[in-house]
Formats: sequence, structure tokens, C-alpha cells
Amino acid sequence: MNKIDLGILGGGQLARMLALDAFPLGISVAVLTPQANDPAAQVVGQTRLGALSDENDLRKFLGDLRALTFESEFVDIPKLTNCLPKSVYVFPNLKAIENIQDRLTQKQMLDRFGIATSPWITVGNKADLTGAIEKFKNSFVLKQRRFGYDGYGTFVVKNGEHDPMILQKTSHGFIAEAFVDFKRELAVSFVRGKNGDFLQLPLVESVQVNSRCFSVTGPVTHTKLGALTKKVRVMMEKIDYVGILAVELFDTPKGLVVNELAPRVHNSAHYSQDALTCSQFEYHVRAGLGLPLPKVEQLKKAFAMVNLLGDGNGEVQLSRAPKGKLHWYGKSENRAGRKLGHINVTEASPKKALTKALQWRKDFKL
Amino acid sequence: MNKIDLGILGGGQLARMLALDAFPLGISVAVLTPQANDPAAQVVGQTRLGALSDENDLRKFLGDLRALTFESEFVDIPKLTNCLPKSVYVFPNLKAIENIQDRLTQKQMLDRFGIATSPWITVGNKADLTGAIEKFKNSFVLKQRRFGYDGYGTFVVKNGEHDPMILQKTSHGFIAEAFVDFKRELAVSFVRGKNGDFLQLPLVESVQVNSRCFSVTGPVTHTKLGALTKKVRVMMEKIDYVGILAVELFDTPKGLVVNELAPRVHNSAHYSQDALTCSQFEYHVRAGLGLPLPKVEQLKKAFAMVNLLGDGNGEVQLSRAPKGKLHWYGKSENRAGRKLGHINVTEASPKKALTKALQWRKDFKL
Repeated sequence: MNKIDLGILGGGQLARMLALDAFPLGISVAVLTPQANDPAAQVVGQTRLGALSDENDLRKFLGDLRALTFESEFVDIPKLTNCLPKSVYVFPNLKAIENIQDRLTQKQMLDRFGIATSPWITVGNKADLTGAIEKFKNSFVLKQRRFGYDGYGTFVVKNGEHDPMILQKTSHGFIAEAFVDFKRELAVSFVRGKNGDFLQLPLVESVQVNSRCFSVTGPVTHTKLGALTKKVRVMMEKIDYVGILAVELFDTPKGLVVNELAPRVHNSAHYSQDALTCSQFEYHVRAGLGLPLPKVEQLKKAFAMVNLLGDGNGEVQLSRAPKGKLHWYGKSENRAGRKLGHINVTEASPKKALTKALQWRKDFKL
Repeated sequence: MNKIDLGILGGGQLARMLALDAFPLGISVAVLTPQANDPAAQVVGQTRLGALSDENDLRKFLGDLRALTFESEFVDIPKLTNCLPKSVYVFPNLKAIENIQDRLTQKQMLDRFGIATSPWITVGNKADLTGAIEKFKNSFVLKQRRFGYDGYGTFVVKNGEHDPMILQKTSHGFIAEAFVDFKRELAVSFVRGKNGDFLQLPLVESVQVNSRCFSVTGPVTHTKLGALTKKVRVMMEKIDYVGILAVELFDTPKGLVVNELAPRVHNSAHYSQDALTCSQFEYHVRAGLGLPLPKVEQLKKAFAMVNLLGDGNGEVQLSRAPKGKLHWYGKSENRAGRKLGHINVTEASPKKALTKALQWRKDFKL
């Protein structure tokens, strides 16, 4: 049997959209995912049903691949390393993912490359916690080191008050982060090819509601973006990062401060599917398979994206009357706050695009 | 089990591209196709392997569907009718496909709606053939009534000379068509929704090499397009046609003359994937599933498409360095002249777009 060009670990919406943009390039794709009705399984002929944590399933899947990528940074690196044939090219590389999946090593890496982030300290025990309360003057955010996302694993400490059992909430350890005084949240994705080619996608503003991405608009300009981009490029080169790297930012009076990195395609760049001539998904796949990276080109002056989130109200029923460009993930369960799809809009200005997107979101009944 | 929203009969590149544009709308798709490595089977989780001519395979497939569409007009209508549950919505309707799949009934339909086509007569026997030689002054084209495409089933008669066995070349019968004196070949696709909504896609110029589509550029203007569109709209309404209808045209000194109709998405409108905000594939699916049809909007002033055809020279190997937007079909055999993929380009003028597309096609080594 011919090897499959690209395997994706996991079968959610990011894997689905990666596959949908890989196919027109003639790239064969397989996914490993537990359920036949998972978002990516619906659109990938070569779906392997299995558990991402099962060594047998992993071995069988990885043995068929030429290259491997991820839709989540929360992968079991030792297990994966154990099951991975040497012939499989992995992007981004496992060392980079390992550094980013742990908030502590991610912070250390950002510090090492002189990339501004919020002040932080490690919190492993009661003494550390007391230290954090002192250092951050009673108010800060406690974040578990691994497996946190969309607000999960994040605990706010205000006026020194906290759950006395807080350190028992995870076995992964914590970091404490100072609150950042920011005007708005921004995000930018970068892509680096196997041959070192490097591109910056447009800077965008993102709005979170209940710690979840609600909308994204762009392009946004910022005088400090050039300096940040240079530093990120150096970092990506030094760690030999290949693929899309998403950077979430705070726009503060002191400049751009990194909130966090995601070593993968990211919700903040979904606009690229309809606003750029090449989407983040196509860039990621091209980067990892050694294809040339087309220059970043906007199709219209501005764009917006709104997420379509579940309301927990029964089954997923698509209204079937969406305006704008709909991207629906094919999830079968409508859980409250769950990302079920998104709408992209292009327009003459970011404001016009967002106004339309918000209106169309309202019209969109689950 | 939940019924599948849309079934596509066949698993070639048209089915593949229909599926790829249906998925983001949240539409579940299944295809019936003989081989697991057929172009559409690679991208459709719900692929049913089977023969399109096998009543058991057909019945099993059709029984799972809410709606059915086609990638080819050459379907066995009686067999399909026999196997089709009443609950399955078929678009375009079988009567329309039946009329179009036979060149004789297609011509009769065009005549009935006053749509100009080349002069023609039926040729069923020797006497008819002699009549055609007289009527068309010794030179004309003999086309078999069914299953002809890309020049296959077409025979040129010049100076009255022809293979004496020509009438035995098919059991489907023939029509004879006068040669048409044309400046260029054009094409235009129309889409009609279930609710009667009707849209015209841009008029394009197509260039054929060896009876196969080689390139398409647009948009093209023509003073007679409005009149043609009106007549086609009336025809589509009268025959209750739903979905994309492709119309191939000759641009003649006497105006626009229809060469032939295709009751499906068509090579001449592949440009729409990257040049319009909604592709022909999305329009077709939206039309048949009763979704609103977005207005036709070009992303740039002009566009071109070139086909990537096989050279028969060994295996299909993708050069992996395509410029423009590549659409590769994932075919495993590189037969000479076989459509393996296409490149779309958008630009400031049709000429600029075509120049780029032709250059990039040359760079593209199989």
C-alpha cells in the first residue's frame, strides 16, 4: 500500500478543515479519531477509528504515514515518541510542542527569546502560592501548566482569596500570572516552511466571551508588530518550528504582550479561509509538506469571523439559511458554549464586516 | 440511522468537488463509486463501494439518502427509477436529465424553447445519412445520441466521405449537425433553486484542444447574452430544473448558438471556486437542498482556469510546486489527455489571468 501523505492526530473541526484544504492540493490524508461521526471522520475517506491514547491504535496509524501533524498541543509526547517510526516527518516538531504544551516551559521559552509576556512565577506548593500572593499584590491568575483551554484550568485569585484546595485541582502544577492591563486582545499567526520561508498573517482583534473566542476582526495595525514578528521569527528558526504558530496577544500601554502560543492552526485565523488567497490550513499543510508558501494576500480590505456556539438546547439543527461564508463542523451534540461552526465575512472595513457578521449570527438559529 | 443529506452518484472529480463544498455547509454526503481510491472516495467518509449499474448496490445507497444528484448525465434512468424510494428528492429531475442525455431530445427541447442551436437532423439509417450529406452539402458532424463526451462518439464527414461502417459504431443512433462558423467558444452556467430563484454565472471563453477543455477565461461580455438568459430561464422553469445547468455556446456572426447542454456542474465553471464568493459546486448543492443562493459576486476583475491533463507517461506524480490555486483530483492513473486537476488564477484582466495560468501550467510537471 502507498503511504499516506499526511496524518492528523484527532478528528475535530481543526482536523476537518486541515483535510478539506489539503485535498485540493492532491495530498492524501488520514485521521485517527475515536468516533465515525467525528467532524473530520465525515470528510476523510481514510479515517482510522481508534483511541489517541492506545499504543496499538497509534502504531497502526503512524505506520501508514509519511508526515504527521496535530490539531491539539495536548498530545502524550512520550507515548507518541514510543510509537513513531523514524520515517514519519512530524510538524511542528515534538520538542517544540512539548515546550508549548506546558505553560511553564512556554514562559521560559518566551523569556529566553526576549518576547514580552505577563510576569509569572511557578506555583508548585503552598509556599509558592503565598509567594505569588505577595509578588502580585493579592490578585493574579493561577493557570494549570497543562491541558488548560477556553478558561478551563484557570483560577482567578482576588484580594488573596482562594479555594484552600486549589493546589489539588490538578496534578500538573500551576503558574501564577499577573493581571495584564490591556486595551484589547489581538492575535497573529505565523507560518514557517521546511526550507525556512517565513510569513506573517494579518494581525487581528479577538473578542472573548466567557473565556471563549466570540469574534475576530481585521486587519489591525500596531506599531510594535514588526519588532514582535522579528523576535518570533528568530524563535521559530532556533526551535526549527515548521507550520502555523498562533500567538495570542494583549495590547497594553507598554506594547504587545504575549498571552499564549498555540502550536497549530487556531480559531483566531479562521477568517483566512475566505479573506486570504491561502488559508491558515493550506499554509500549515504546505509548510509541513515542503510546498511553496504563496505570499499573504487579502481578497478584500477587511474581514470578520464569528463563532457559532451551542446553546445546549437539544440537537444540532442547522438553520440552513446562513449568509456570509459558513463553515459548519458537523458535530452531533449541541452542548452549551461548544464551537459548532463559524461565519466569515469580507467587507470594506473591519467594522462593516463585524456588523454584518454579528447580524448574520443573530439570524442563525440553531 | 440518520438519513444522509445528499448522495452523489459516481466518485470522480465532480463528485469530489461537490462534496468538498457541501461539507462546510454542514451537509452530510455519501457517494456510490466502484473503487476506494476514486477521487471522491478519498474525501468522503460515507463512501459506498458498488457498481452504479447494480440494482442491489443502487437500492442500498439510495435507501439511505434524503436527496440525490449526479456528476454525469449518463445514468440509466429506468434502472434508477426502479430503485429509487419516493422519499428521495432528485435534482435535476430525471425527466430533464433524460431529455438532455440524448442529443436528439436535447435538440428538440432547445427548438421547442426557441433557443438557437446548429441545424440538425436525425440519422438512424443509410437513407438518413444520404439525406444529411445532401442537406449539409457534404460536410457535417455525426454525433452519437448518447454517451458522447470530449470528442468521443463524434465523427466528422467531409466532402461526403465517411467510414461505410459508421452507422454500426453505436447502437444509440446519431444526429447530424451542420458545421458552425464560429469566432470562439463560450460557456455560461445557470443555477435555479427549489423555490425558483435563478442566477446567471459569468460568461466565459473556453478553448478546446483535441476536443477537450484546455482553458477558460472570463468574464466575457456579449450583447446577446441577456436574450439567451431569458430563454434559458423560461426553459428551466418549464422543465422545473433545479441545480446548475451548463450551456456551451458558439459565438457566431448570427449571434449565440448553443453547442450543448450539461445538466450538472461543468469544467467551464471550475473558475468559480476561486473567482466567485460562491462556487458552482456550492450553488448546485444549495439549489438542490433548498438553501438560499448568494448573489453572484466576483472576487477580482477577471479569472482563468487551465486543465492539467495527463501525458500518459507513467504514474501520477504531483510536482508539488504549483502556483495559483491548485485543484488536484487524486487520480491514480496518468492516462494521456485525462483530466487530473486544474489551476485557477484571478487577475486584473482575462488576458493577464490566462497568461499567468498558461505559464504556471508549463511549470507544472506531472
